[in-house]
Amino acid sequence: MRIYADNAATTRMSRAALDAMIPCLEEQYGNPSSLYSLGQRAKEALELARQDVAAVIGASPKEITFTSGGSEADNQALRSAAALGKKAGKTHIISTAFEHHAILHTLAALEKEGFTVTLLPVHENGIVRVEDVEAALRDDTCLVSVMYANNEIGTVQPVRAIGALCRRRGVLFHTDAVQAVPHLRIDVEADNIDLLSASAHKFHGPKGVGFLYARKGVRLTSLIEGGAQERGKRAGTENVPGIVGMSAALKETAENLEAATARLLPLRDRLIAGLREIPHSALNGDEEKRLPGNVNFCFEGIEGESLLLLLDDRGICASSGSACTSGSLDPSHVLLAIGRVHDVAHGSLRLTLGEDATEAEVDYIIQNVKEVVAYLRGFSPVWRDLESGKTPHIL
Amino acid sequence: MRIYADNAATTRMSRAALDAMIPCLEEQYGNPSSLYSLGQRAKEALELARQDVAAVIGASPKEITFTSGGSEADNQALRSAAALGKKAGKTHIISTAFEHHAILHTLAALEKEGFTVTLLPVHENGIVRVEDVEAALRDDTCLVSVMYANNEIGTVQPVRAIGALCRRRGVLFHTDAVQAVPHLRIDVEADNIDLLSASAHKFHGPKGVGFLYARKGVRLTSLIEGGAQERGKRAGTENVPGIVGMSAALKETAENLEAATARLLPLRDRLIAGLREIPHSALNGDEEKRLPGNVNFCFEGIEGESLLLLLDDRGICASSGSACTSGSLDPSHVLLAIGRVHDVAHGSLRLTLGEDATEAEVDYIIQNVKEVVAYLRGFSPVWRDLESGKTPHIL
Repeated sequence: MRIYADNAATTRMSRAALDAMIPCLEEQYGNPSSLYSLGQRAKEALELARQDVAAVIGASPKEITFTSGGSEADNQALRSAAALGKKAGKTHIISTAFEHHAILHTLAALEKEGFTVTLLPVHENGIVRVEDVEAALRDDTCLVSVMYANNEIGTVQPVRAIGALCRRRGVLFHTDAVQAVPHLRIDVEADNIDLLSASAHKFHGPKGVGFLYARKGVRLTSLIEGGAQERGKRAGTENVPGIVGMSAALKETAENLEAATARLLPLRDRLIAGLREIPHSALNGDEEKRLPGNVNFCFEGIEGESLLLLLDDRGICASSGSACTSGSLDPSHVLLAIGRVHDVAHGSLRLTLGEDATEAEVDYIIQNVKEVVAYLRGFSPVWRDLESGKTPHIL
Repeated sequence: MRIYADNAATTRMSRAALDAMIPCLEEQYGNPSSLYSLGQRAKEALELARQDVAAVIGASPKEITFTSGGSEADNQALRSAAALGKKAGKTHIISTAFEHHAILHTLAALEKEGFTVTLLPVHENGIVRVEDVEAALRDDTCLVSVMYANNEIGTVQPVRAIGALCRRRGVLFHTDAVQAVPHLRIDVEADNIDLLSASAHKFHGPKGVGFLYARKGVRLTSLIEGGAQERGKRAGTENVPGIVGMSAALKETAENLEAATARLLPLRDRLIAGLREIPHSALNGDEEKRLPGNVNFCFEGIEGESLLLLLDDRGICASSGSACTSGSLDPSHVLLAIGRVHDVAHGSLRLTLGEDATEAEVDYIIQNVKEVVAYLRGFSPVWRDLESGKTPHIL
């Protein structure tokens, strides 16, 4: 059996996305800035994609800027809000301790440029509290950035309430919705969102393309200067095939969203229940308020990387933390943020199911994770010390 | 007849590029940062592409950073050199008046941040003079950026000599090679280049991907912060299909380069000779030192946009200036830089032939441009004034 259970890292492109892309990769190769018909057809495809993307999140087309992906969109959102803040003499930014590095590293860069950043705690359940946001707001706060759903533990944040608070206080609100867009019904009006980032390859679209929603009146700063593409906010010939593929993938995802959720929820909970049978294990993040495909566990006494490699041998694609930081020896900043100690955080496993997952696959995963965890503990000195009582169990 | 003669704007993807991309868009969808085999195969494809791209320009793989296109590469090159310069107390940059806007607008932004920029003249022939570069060099010059070949008039710059001068003087040398890579044999060692930008869709690769060469030891600044992709110099999940497609296109382009040049040169010169028969017309840019597919003319008494639309009706895709600035009412800054007056610059036509162009196509273009220019002049008040002697002819 081969099971791809790392859909938070990337997804397989949908047939709809691929079918939409292929003509743009072949016959319809015009540059959207060209005046002749081949160019104008590319321009039309681009603007149709913009309409479709906007419609899915309740935005208007002019509020959508196409980017090369979620990281670029995150960078541009933060840099734009910071530039607007600076102009108004406001240089304080609120975010959370477990944001994606595209946010955290940009905030660190902004701190060097004179901004002050408050990173809120996300507590044991991996959910930021609206009252914490409220308490952190200052007269000079220009931006609150809270991710819609976490990329590692899948916890869904109270975005709508945070957005409402920000609106009342006249502070811009950005949300990194890269993980949320594939699974949650997002409405930028109802959710009170001013800036939102998304990435196509997380919802069965192509890699190398994403979008940034910016509410009318929120002036974007260009990260890439040059031609007048994207209303002067993002230079460079548009990635027409990628954008068209993204739009097709997003439309399909949105159409199937409730059905996919209804399928995924019981599978997720079955997976959680099965893995809980493993002694000295713990689910990371809130059990209810999490994305429908996300399961994230810590297992005492083992090392995440070995677990992944052995699961790969058994046909299971999974991850330990996010793909973006793999290779790093540091434990996940997300797991540390929810209070896991270093040793435990190292033994984490993230499984993110695709919409086509089955019960049989879930059972196969449970069985194999059980076996591999037992096997690895069999020769783990850390586990020996735990079992002998030399060091106390934490989980 | 349908003739695509706007290959400087974008090119049709090659079969080789598409064939290389498709598996990455379908089965091989892993995230290169993932540890399991599906991810590692994507990583291998990525690194193989890096080797292939590096080999074509005589670089080593570690010197290649993949970007979302030429504009991003240009921005990152300039920002990186500027950051290095600032650190060393050097804040003077030399470039030319007819660079692409990805360069000129970034330089304008750097000026606002305290840098001083000297834009060299490119003279009537559209070629910058090495002695002008030398005369402009100052003790605080940190960067010289001169495009390899111009995107509108195709003139090829004395890159090797400028690079040698920069090397002698210890100044970084960047070249925007977006237009040159498809047509010229580039060797970053022999050409003394420290930083080089390129864009895949100009050489029959996909849109939305490009690369930046940075010589070992030239530290890049990230435009996009986040994950550790691209050795920490460009965050975001890699556009594997795009990168693999780019590499296949580049390899093929490099293999066929001399043969394509041999085919294109006589066609280009036939086209130039044919269009010269139109009275009061002039070739823009040096006749010899220009890209093998590039023809750029000014015609007195007509307006470029009408010319393009009528040629489109006759099946000819061409442009007036660069695609990136179409829609703008300003005349081309490139044509102004070579001394064309506003009125004449407005009546310009760029034809950039593809490697598969034929004599019959060239003759068709000549015939139709002649007819359309005559037709437009027929009801042009400007032309009437010129012909009546009310205003003097310039061309």
